[in-house]
Formats: sequence, structure tokens, C-alpha cells
Amino acid sequence: MGTDAKNRALLAMADALVAHQDEILRANQHDMQAAQEAGLTGYILDRLLLTPERLAQYGSDVRNVASLPDPVGQGFDQRTLANGLVVGKVRVPLGVIACVYEARPNVTVDIASLCLKAGNATILRGGKEAFHSNSTLARTIARAATEAGVPEGAIQFVESTDRALVAELLSLRGYIDLVVPRGGGLIDFVLEHAKVPVLIGGVGVCHTYVDRTADLEKAVEIADNAKTRRYSICNALDTLLVHREIAADYLPRIARRWAEKGVELRCDPAALEVLSKAQIPNLQARPAEPDDFGKEHLALVATVKVVDSLDEALDLIYQYGTGHSDAIVTEDYSAARRFVQEVDSAVVYVNASTQFTDGAQFGLGAEIIDSTQKLHARGPVGLQEITTYKWVVLGTGQVRPP
Amino acid sequence: MGTDAKNRALLAMADALVAHQDEILRANQHDMQAAQEAGLTGYILDRLLLTPERLAQYGSDVRNVASLPDPVGQGFDQRTLANGLVVGKVRVPLGVIACVYEARPNVTVDIASLCLKAGNATILRGGKEAFHSNSTLARTIARAATEAGVPEGAIQFVESTDRALVAELLSLRGYIDLVVPRGGGLIDFVLEHAKVPVLIGGVGVCHTYVDRTADLEKAVEIADNAKTRRYSICNALDTLLVHREIAADYLPRIARRWAEKGVELRCDPAALEVLSKAQIPNLQARPAEPDDFGKEHLALVATVKVVDSLDEALDLIYQYGTGHSDAIVTEDYSAARRFVQEVDSAVVYVNASTQFTDGAQFGLGAEIIDSTQKLHARGPVGLQEITTYKWVVLGTGQVRPP
Repeated sequence: MGTDAKNRALLAMADALVAHQDEILRANQHDMQAAQEAGLTGYILDRLLLTPERLAQYGSDVRNVASLPDPVGQGFDQRTLANGLVVGKVRVPLGVIACVYEARPNVTVDIASLCLKAGNATILRGGKEAFHSNSTLARTIARAATEAGVPEGAIQFVESTDRALVAELLSLRGYIDLVVPRGGGLIDFVLEHAKVPVLIGGVGVCHTYVDRTADLEKAVEIADNAKTRRYSICNALDTLLVHREIAADYLPRIARRWAEKGVELRCDPAALEVLSKAQIPNLQARPAEPDDFGKEHLALVATVKVVDSLDEALDLIYQYGTGHSDAIVTEDYSAARRFVQEVDSAVVYVNASTQFTDGAQFGLGAEIIDSTQKLHARGPVGLQEITTYKWVVLGTGQVRPP
Repeated sequence: MGTDAKNRALLAMADALVAHQDEILRANQHDMQAAQEAGLTGYILDRLLLTPERLAQYGSDVRNVASLPDPVGQGFDQRTLANGLVVGKVRVPLGVIACVYEARPNVTVDIASLCLKAGNATILRGGKEAFHSNSTLARTIARAATEAGVPEGAIQFVESTDRALVAELLSLRGYIDLVVPRGGGLIDFVLEHAKVPVLIGGVGVCHTYVDRTADLEKAVEIADNAKTRRYSICNALDTLLVHREIAADYLPRIARRWAEKGVELRCDPAALEVLSKAQIPNLQARPAEPDDFGKEHLALVATVKVVDSLDEALDLIYQYGTGHSDAIVTEDYSAARRFVQEVDSAVVYVNASTQFTDGAQFGLGAEIIDSTQKLHARGPVGLQEITTYKWVVLGTGQVRPP
């Protein structure tokens, strides 16, 4: 499909989300009721809830996808060889992308619209808590897409929450080109069963290291933002490392900020000793357990440790990090350079909050996941990253010499 | 390791292949004798054989790798965001690459040198027929690399031919970043057992389609080169498709050429009928069996079929091709454009031999495999394709707004 045809379909999908909002909200009400009866509470219920405002936002997100540049057909690395062959790469769709996800109805619309824009077919398999919402959303946008000329079957939804079907989906080599699990609980299952290529991400143990030469004001803002702007996302701060030389100065400052915001600090003995002297109101600080290192908190909790050197910080990030997003705060050029060189994470930051790891923030328009694998794509996975390329060789009769 | 240090190590490895040639040739003699006793013959024995000349060629290949540009550290897609963050990608090594391969001693040296140049560690596991040759080659280059400053263990050889160890290797998620099987017989085993990312390639069912408007002289040269220049490589022609309008003119010409070279033609009824009238000396033509379509011959054999249209050719390539290398010979602009657009193979050719699919031919310097998967890399996999990237974000204290 050409870009215009795909964009027309996307706009039709956006319109359909509003036109069919009664049907969608009824299905969501069904899910909400079941979730409440099952005793689900708090942010899980909130993630599940659909409202007219949220549906309007979904529609506007789909319109945003329509407005993004189309990666398909883009040529690159073209050269003319000495024998006259014109050799180059052209970006093409990956093919069929399956997404297995938990109870977030927005994923249904996000994945389907991004995949369609990049020319891919989509197979969606959402979590059981949002089954009726997802099913109705998928039916609504798939119908709108088909009516706008998209081939039937380009957006499919698995109308069952039987996990055996996921295992079967994961074995369909030759039919599915990529499986994307969204949600930490699914990754192990997918890795265990996948016979098709996978794109893993969305889980991160993220470090911020405050170096001995850090601007401590900036370091408070950066660490606080990395932890508290949104604590439930994969690039939120999990562990704060602080150089021993500035620990007595810095730790009380960040702890004061976090005490105000209700962040619990799980500290190594050196950090705890500093903080115990600081008399901070409402401070929640307690000794770190061994498994607090390497833990993705997804909560108002931070592991805190004092280190003797940049080397020790690098070692800890190597040992406990997951290659997602890690930051240094420093005014030391050589320390910044070493950190950038030696930390092998999807995104490495100097003097900025790790919360920036996001396709829209990086100028990719949108993303389907933050990849923590090394193959194919790393960090924010936008439209370009859900395509591949083929080589096109244009000749005039060339044959290869012996 | 910096580029200079890696290149020094590569030159030391090249020298060591010559300096230790007696030891290597003795080990190879051991393998050759066992192979002869086991009744192996022909090109398998030839692939196994090492000579002083071949070792000198290995050395010269390693020197060529030293002379290639280093992909590591290359920056790209850099931009400055509105908030002042400088965001970009930097190319970095993949990490640890394991290669499982059959009885070709040259693979030991090729893979180790290319991986080292791209900053990767290598784990090599060769076939049992070449065990002593591979083991001695690996020991020789690994020792030379270590003496030249490469960390111990950067080039490792699995000193066993027990297949259970391959299954274990394939399960080492978190330790191995990529497994590359070289040799068609290994792919199914690897796909069955791999819990680590894989790069599949080196197997292809390749089509050349001679369109109704083809320049028939060029079409004879192109199809003949694609089949006979080397018939044992994955991008050799397997199936020749010929448009019905020019079949009576073209088929006898290519058949005459192939009869001279001993190529056997496995024909559909229409092709057989044309050829039976043509009185070609030494022609080997017989009816195609159903499984001749979709078969990688790796021999002086070609499947031949007459088609009614470009559409039929596209359908057959979709049905029987493996997404490796496929060609059209045509003077029709629209036919060429449709073929390039609709054939989704790693390399799509217009008016050229499919034998060009090769890293060195495409200007990549060298290759470790021709990928037929869509994820990560497609077609020739050179130095750049055995790296990944990380995002580097340079800030001055930026935090992300709510």
C-alpha cells in the first residue's frame, strides 16, 4: 500500500474510535466490573479504564501516526560499483508482527496503527483483564481499515485468552516475522517458547551515578525527575550511586526532596550513616537487602549506594544493570567520556534524566517498545525499526567473473 | 580495543598462519586421512584440504580485514533536540558471537578475524571432519591475538564435537549475543534449540526470470553465470522461469550453453516440449518432479519452467523462493519496477547474475554469511552488520517535563 492509502486508513481508524465509542465503553464497562469483582485495585484499574476523553486521545494518537513520515520505500547506502551495477538498500515492511501484551487497551490501538503505517500486518493478543475492551477496539479499527481499503486480515485480534495459543503463535516460523512481548511478566514465557524472532524490551534496572564533580543542584533535579516524574515506567531510576567525596553533601539534599514526595530509600551502610545524621523530616530510609540491587522497583522506592570511584560505579552498572538507560551526572569531561564509552546500555546519558528514553522524545514520532536487546534495534523502537530493507541491484547484463 | 590495536592483532594472526603452517598442515593431514578412511570424496575432500598456498590466502584475507574501515565508534542519526539535548547513535560491538559451522577450515579464520575487527568475542564450533585443522587454526590465531594484546578468551574454540554442547551453547542467554549457523544442515537444529538470537542465512532457492522483452543474449549470459560460475554457493540459480512468448527462441539457446557445460535441466511439460524439438547435442533434459521446485540444487542442475506472465513468475517466486537472491531479465521498465517492488528477497536483481550477492562484491569488504532473515541484517552480513548501536544523550541538566 502507498503512503496516501495507509494514511487514509489511519484517519478512518481514528474516526471510528469516536464514532463507536458507546460500543467500546460498554465493553470496557464489562472488563471494569469483572476486574473489580476480581479484587483488582489502584493503578491496574486505572490503566484498564476507558473514558470518552481517553478514546479521543487514542484517536489523536492515531492521527499523529498518520502524520509521521513513511519509512517504507526510503533508499539508502546506494552506490555504483566499478562494473556499473547500481547497488543499494530500500526500506520495506518486516511482514507480520505479533504483539502479546498485558491489560492496557491503548496498546491495541498503538501497535495496530504503527504497524499499519510501516506496512506490516498485526496479530494482537492482549491480556484477559482487558479482553472485551481490546476485542472491541480491535474489531472497530480493523473494520474501519478494511473499509478504507486495507486488505482483510491486516489487523487481527486473537479472540481467546488461552495461553496455549500464545505458545502456538510463538512457534509459527515462516508466518510471523516478529513477536513483541509488552509487559515484564510475558518476556520469560516468550523467550521460553519462541521459535520466531522476538524483540525484547520494556524492562529496565536503571542507574543514575552522581560523580564527585557533579553539579549537585542539577544532580538533585536529574535523580528526582528520573525517579518521580513517573515511577511505573521502565526507564525510571532504580538505583542511585553517589561518589563518596560528595555523599555527605548530596545525599541529604536528594533525600529531603524524596522525603517530601514519599520515596523510600533502600541504602547501603555508608549512605544510611550519612542520612541518619541529617535529621530529615518524613525520611523513609532503611538498609538495602541484597536483592534491592538489580531490582526494577516500579514504585516510589530507590536503592542508594555510596561508591569510591567511577570504576566502582561502572562495575555495579555492568553487574546489576539491564542495558536499558543509565546516567552519569558530572562536570568532569574525562569521567563523562569514560561513562559514555564503557556503559553498554541502549541509552547512555550525561547530565540528563533517564526518563527521556522514549521514541517521541527522541524525535522518532512514536514507539512500540524500548528495546533492551542488541539485535536489530536498541532503545526506542519507532516506525523505522519495525521495517527491514532489501538490496536492489540494477544491472545492464553484468555477470560475475570467475 | 582501539582500531590500531585490533589491526595489529589481525596482522599478527595473519603472520602466525604462515609461521605455524607445518603444525597446521600436519593437523589437516590427520583430518584428510580420517576423511578418506570414512569414504568422503570429491568437493568435500577438496573443501577440507589445506595447502601452503591456501594458508597464505587465509593470511591475506586476514590482512584484508585489517585494512577495512572499523565500524565501531561511528556516530550517526545525531540531532539536537529543542531542549538542548544532543541525541545520537554510536556503533558498538554486539558482544559475544558464536558460530557453528561445518567442515570448512577457512570459516575458523574468517569469522574470528571479522568478529575481532568489529570488537566482538568469538566462540567457534566447527564440524568434526575438520576438527584437528580447526582446532589448530583457532589455537594459532588465538595465541597470536593474545600476544598482540587481545584479552584472553576473545577467540575460543569448542574442543569437542559433541552435539549436546551445541544445544548448551544455544541456551546461554545473557552470555552469547548472537549465534550464526553456517551450513544448511545446522539451521534446523539451531532454530529448534536456540534461546539466544540467531542470524540465519547461507541457504537459497534462487530464481532468474527471463521476461518477454528480455535481451536474449544477455539472458543467456546472466542465467548461465548464475548457474555455472559456481554451482555450490547459496546464490547460484536453482530455477529458471521463461516467459511463454520467448520460450521457443530462448530455451534452446540457454539449453545449448548448458548442454556444453553438463547442466541437467528439469523441465515442466512446456519447456520439455520446446527442447525436444531443438535437437541439442548432449542435452540432459527430463521432466521436473514436483519437489524440483523449491529445491536448492547445489549441483549442475536447474529447474526450468515456462510461465504465462510476470504475475505467474512473481507467484512462483513467492511460493518457492527463500528470500535470498532473485533476478529478472527484461527491457520493460514497468516489469522491472514491479519485480523490484514485489519480490521481497534479500537481494533483488534486474539484468544481472544472482552470483553477485556477496559482501566483497557489494563493497562491504567481506562477509560472514548471506542473511535470509528479515531481522537485523539482510543479504551480505559484513563488519557493520555484526555491530549494534547505543544511543548517547549529552545534556546540561535537562529533566523531562510532566
